Amino acid sequence: AQRINLAVVAGDGIGTEVVEQGLLALDAALSGSGSTVTTTDYDLGARRWHATGETLTDADLEAIRSHDAILLGAIGDPSVPSGVLERGLLLKLRFALDHYVNLRPAKLFPGVASPLANPGEVDFVVVREGTEGPYVGNGGAIRVGTPHEVANEVSVNTAFGVERVVRDAFARANARPRRKLTLVHKHNVLVHAGHLWRRTVEAVNAEFPDVTVDYLHVDAATIFLVTDPARFDVIVTDNLFGDILTDLAGAIVGGIGLAASANINPDRTAPSMFEPVHGSAPDIAGQGKADPTATVLSVALLLDHLGERDAAARVEAAVAADVAERAGRVRSTAEVGKDLAARIAG
Amino acid sequence: AQRINLAVVAGDGIGTEVVEQGLLALDAALSGSGSTVTTTDYDLGARRWHATGETLTDADLEAIRSHDAILLGAIGDPSVPSGVLERGLLLKLRFALDHYVNLRPAKLFPGVASPLANPGEVDFVVVREGTEGPYVGNGGAIRVGTPHEVANEVSVNTAFGVERVVRDAFARANARPRRKLTLVHKHNVLVHAGHLWRRTVEAVNAEFPDVTVDYLHVDAATIFLVTDPARFDVIVTDNLFGDILTDLAGAIVGGIGLAASANINPDRTAPSMFEPVHGSAPDIAGQGKADPTATVLSVALLLDHLGERDAAARVEAAVAADVAERAGRVRSTAEVGKDLAARIAG
Ligand SMILES: CC(C)[C@H](C(=O)O)[C@@H](O)C(=O)O
Ligand SMILES: CC(C)[C@H](C(=O)O)[C@@H](O)C(=O)O
Repeated sequence: AQRINLAVVAGDGIGTEVVEQGLLALDAALSGSGSTVTTTDYDLGARRWHATGETLTDADLEAIRSHDAILLGAIGDPSVPSGVLERGLLLKLRFALDHYVNLRPAKLFPGVASPLANPGEVDFVVVREGTEGPYVGNGGAIRVGTPHEVANEVSVNTAFGVERVVRDAFARANARPRRKLTLVHKHNVLVHAGHLWRRTVEAVNAEFPDVTVDYLHVDAATIFLVTDPARFDVIVTDNLFGDILTDLAGAIVGGIGLAASANINPDRTAPSMFEPVHGSAPDIAGQGKADPTATVLSVALLLDHLGERDAAARVEAAVAADVAERAGRVRSTAEVGKDLAARIAG
Repeated sequence: AQRINLAVVAGDGIGTEVVEQGLLALDAALSGSGSTVTTTDYDLGARRWHATGETLTDADLEAIRSHDAILLGAIGDPSVPSGVLERGLLLKLRFALDHYVNLRPAKLFPGVASPLANPGEVDFVVVREGTEGPYVGNGGAIRVGTPHEVANEVSVNTAFGVERVVRDAFARANARPRRKLTLVHKHNVLVHAGHLWRRTVEAVNAEFPDVTVDYLHVDAATIFLVTDPARFDVIVTDNLFGDILTDLAGAIVGGIGLAASANINPDRTAPSMFEPVHGSAPDIAGQGKADPTATVLSVALLLDHLGERDAAARVEAAVAADVAERAGRVRSTAEVGKDLAARIAG
């Protein structure tokens, strides 16, 4: 039993709606366990930026650092210039808190409709690197707005950064029944970064001899995701390829309304952050239409990370039971949340 | 009527097999048109590299430059280190011959099975930039093989390069019934490159006021490609995103056995190059199992580029008729090629 000191960043758009239901699920999951949760809300996102011009101050960051974990709803609004909140808030959190494992499970629950005609049994996780690659913000432009503009983006990959995420992915693969790891990159074009990833996977494989490794170029990986997604067990890949593959994976297992994610700092030098893969969806915000399930599944990842494995399993089981009976039903965000909480409470 | 002086780079693996059938289709399509084809074979690829260490010499390039067009099969073999032939031959051709429009149609022909349960009427083209982005080869690494290795890849984007491909994409959209252009990028993360693309699309839109423009982040684009591919008409995107999206698109419209591509130099300062999207597939090479249809459809793009519109239309119609009757039939590469040539000849 523990006291969980949780930072809540509900954020923009549907973020507040889904986080509310996520917190209900969290309470339900811990009831009777002896563990308790205290939440602190952080007002971050578009509203704050419009009011103060701030995205994430040093003080915000230090305050958030003191928590055991972070639950995040969604960040982003069309009223804010593209990149400001993404770079200044969401990615800043991931980078500052060293969330080098961006974990994104893709599981097709029985009863959930896939856009694929024959998806098969899909149950894999993507270990997306979270602190390097083209996400580092090492780009720049000259002569902006002139016919001679040059805009560069730099993907930075280090042995340190690649090795730690690859090792984490191997450990996850080693703990799963199929023990299979697929490296996804594009080493025939991005030869420097790609060969670093490849050599690292080969080297770390020696520590995990029971794990079978294969490799796919990112373009080929998207093909297999629609023709044979059941072939995947654990995928390890860079920040940008991971971003792309996990949205596609989410779509394949029933839509990003169900896609959970964990931004993990495995060394626990800072709190990890749990968030649905979907965004703030301003088009449906405030209408009670958002599906809170991705947030509830992110709460399961949070519980698992904090060692509350039974609670995590109950949340996942509740979602599995709920989605199995969804076909044709229309429920509001709050109704889905209530139903899930009731199932979790058992 | 014209004399077409064609460079043929059959290349590796199934490349030679599919190119043979592509040439049969080309002959059949031009018979009776008055136009003729003369072919010159270029021995490029893995065999040549093993024998001589050469990928593409200056002399090869100058010889190829003198042709009206290039038909390419496939490049690449596991016996050659990753990147050597891709960078040294395939990409070198695309860059040296200024193939800035990499055109990849995605059309679901009636009768072709898609992995999607409800694909709808899919008929779009991807205009992938071909001479910039992360493909420029501006990467590098330091301290290779040590724990302190840093491997960078630079995506270079210029106003010159982006504007010309965006203008080409608008012109293509403007000539299609739906007149719709979707820019795909990731401007919330790759802010410098992304904003250049975005501003360029806005600016060029003024020249094509009848074209409706929308924007998708690359991750979201992959979702729509599996949930609603019929929404797309023309997609314009960078070299790497285009690589990823077109493999996925190919899978959705029945597999890359059907996916054609054209590497176009719209200014005609050098020959354009036509190639199936699939690779050399060493696992099935030499067995007569490869589907030559993607190459035959690439021949249709070649004919269209050279102004032989009737011949191009006949090739496409022949493929449409053939694939409509494919279900359950197993034919060799040569049989498919023969059947297609017969249909084209009428
Ligand atoms: C909002 C954006 C910066 C973010 C990303 O690209 O990582 C999102 O797409 C995600 O996948 O969490
Ligand atoms: C072989 C490789 C270099 C090439 C690319 O990435 O462009 C291929 O995937 C393609 O799409 O034509």
